[in-house]
Amino acid sequence: MPELRKDPVIGRWVIISTERSKRPRDVFVLSQSAEIPNRECDFCANPQDYPEIFTLRDSSNPDKWHVMVVPRKNRLLQIEGAIDRRAHGIYDVMNGVGAHELVIETPEHILNIADLPLEIIDKVLSVYALRMRDLEQDERLRYVLIYKNYEGKKQRGSILHSRSNIIALPVNPKRVKEKLSGAKKYYVYHERCIFCDIIRQEKDQQVRIVDENDNFIAISAFASRFPFETWVLPKTHLCDFYKLEPTHYRDLSLILKRVLLKIKVGLNDPPYSWVFFTAPFRKKRRPGYWMTLEEDFHWHIEIIPQLTRVAGFEWGTGFYINPMLPEDSAEFLRNIEVDI
Amino acid sequence: MPELRKDPVIGRWVIISTERSKRPRDVFVLSQSAEIPNRECDFCANPQDYPEIFTLRDSSNPDKWHVMVVPRKNRLLQIEGAIDRRAHGIYDVMNGVGAHELVIETPEHILNIADLPLEIIDKVLSVYALRMRDLEQDERLRYVLIYKNYEGKKQRGSILHSRSNIIALPVNPKRVKEKLSGAKKYYVYHERCIFCDIIRQEKDQQVRIVDENDNFIAISAFASRFPFETWVLPKTHLCDFYKLEPTHYRDLSLILKRVLLKIKVGLNDPPYSWVFFTAPFRKKRRPGYWMTLEEDFHWHIEIIPQLTRVAGFEWGTGFYINPMLPEDSAEFLRNIEVDI
Repeated sequence: MPELRKDPVIGRWVIISTERSKRPRDVFVLSQSAEIPNRECDFCANPQDYPEIFTLRDSSNPDKWHVMVVPRKNRLLQIEGAIDRRAHGIYDVMNGVGAHELVIETPEHILNIADLPLEIIDKVLSVYALRMRDLEQDERLRYVLIYKNYEGKKQRGSILHSRSNIIALPVNPKRVKEKLSGAKKYYVYHERCIFCDIIRQEKDQQVRIVDENDNFIAISAFASRFPFETWVLPKTHLCDFYKLEPTHYRDLSLILKRVLLKIKVGLNDPPYSWVFFTAPFRKKRRPGYWMTLEEDFHWHIEIIPQLTRVAGFEWGTGFYINPMLPEDSAEFLRNIEVDI
Repeated sequence: MPELRKDPVIGRWVIISTERSKRPRDVFVLSQSAEIPNRECDFCANPQDYPEIFTLRDSSNPDKWHVMVVPRKNRLLQIEGAIDRRAHGIYDVMNGVGAHELVIETPEHILNIADLPLEIIDKVLSVYALRMRDLEQDERLRYVLIYKNYEGKKQRGSILHSRSNIIALPVNPKRVKEKLSGAKKYYVYHERCIFCDIIRQEKDQQVRIVDENDNFIAISAFASRFPFETWVLPKTHLCDFYKLEPTHYRDLSLILKRVLLKIKVGLNDPPYSWVFFTAPFRKKRRPGYWMTLEEDFHWHIEIIPQLTRVAGFEWGTGFYINPMLPEDSAEFLRNIEVDI
């Protein structure tokens, strides 16, 4: 009998196929390894279009850089100007104030962050945190969305470096609001963090764990929308990613690299996305609103390999059908050996 | 300056490009006309796999049928059995009880419902209503999701007939819940239906209307996530699609056919989806919950041409960037002449 499973945080029901007969390699048309396309890299060819916002240089050789943050070309948000919230009849509008930045994760033509050395992944993560600290100073901004779209062999972007995106917004994205509000409801009822409870249950049951180290755990989400949807959570309760203990960065880099390599090796280098879910900035003028946020929210990362097409009705209705049991996804990824 | 616009019903903010310089034909790689693929139609080749659930036959010739409802092959829900809501530690699970039906909209090999005659579209819509009335009798079911994925030239499905899907569920899909709850909040505050207010403002401003007749209006949504996202609403307030006045079916068929033909002609026959948003069934055992639903909810259809790729971060975060001003989408579609 197929199952309907409910996402414990946001309350979305997902149809999960519970047939154990199909194995990952039967279900998916697996993609082929990504190669660096034989075309010009726009970032290298037109450096004048990418003024440096922040550069992490090599301490012993200032001519060499590791990670560079630049504005996105064709960005749809601009940092100058007032937000100007206003009505348009019954509708609500504000100016598109915000930041739209690109984090170039390596000076070399390498596409997948999984192929970068651990110490570089460390640096990328610490650059995210630095950018968040900087953007937090801007009173107009409420949320910093950190995400990555790795395109695999379908690589169509004009930049041939592993890269991620930072969007700073004067509003909270909808799924962030849903997670905040679901976690708060759970906390009000139980006086416990729902994510801490999830970690406890997953460690107890041991069937959806993909990888684990001292400070982080990677699991197949119980009500995954997609095959191999993987959540990475810090074991220590913390609502803000950018307040991570400096000593925990290495474990985060390690679990990310391991999970992404398992996806690369096991699923033949498919496209994937990652999104960081962290607490919004707490601005002084809205104190009461955030009262329990530090206790009830727990930052985490969602990693989603893009193996199946998202059908129109799925984004139209918010109703998902996952053809693969999350326990099978976890077992498959857990058993892939990777060498770091 | 780009704008952030808020969906008035569910509160999602969308970044909207407000540059008027780009025209639809510049922005999109337009697809080519769909042709019937040169392969076997599974529905015609293997009729034994598709037992009839309901057939609308020709009144003068019972050998001829117009619309047929069959179970979906590989369906993930089954109609037999108890729902059995249960806990799995902190998680929630229930059995995948429900119906998964296919509405075959024509005995002929025609792919796009826009190419069917008006009187057949009438029949398809009335079959939806009949199926809803039938499924409502089942006490376990709460919602009937009616949707269509027209695949255009990318047609990959094994059935070469215009068709749509009916999924009957023991839960409400997430976006339905969001719409219900947003509409209820607005009603509690204003004592007016938000959709009636939207129609009033759109008729007043005249800039986002795509098409209109006596009983229906089609608009580009103010905070559209996608270029040419079009909402079709009945002008008379009604929360249940399947309780539509019989005399209004013709106007609904007409506006759907006109909008879909405008999309076909103007955008070169792209894939599109439509989703019906109608009120959930009101079951006797949950009376209070629905108290104001008949006043505050207003059924409608969302039509979304698939011109742009949905990036990972968009379904990951619920945050959308629309490169096209909805007023430009509406003007473009409004000006496409179609002949019916």
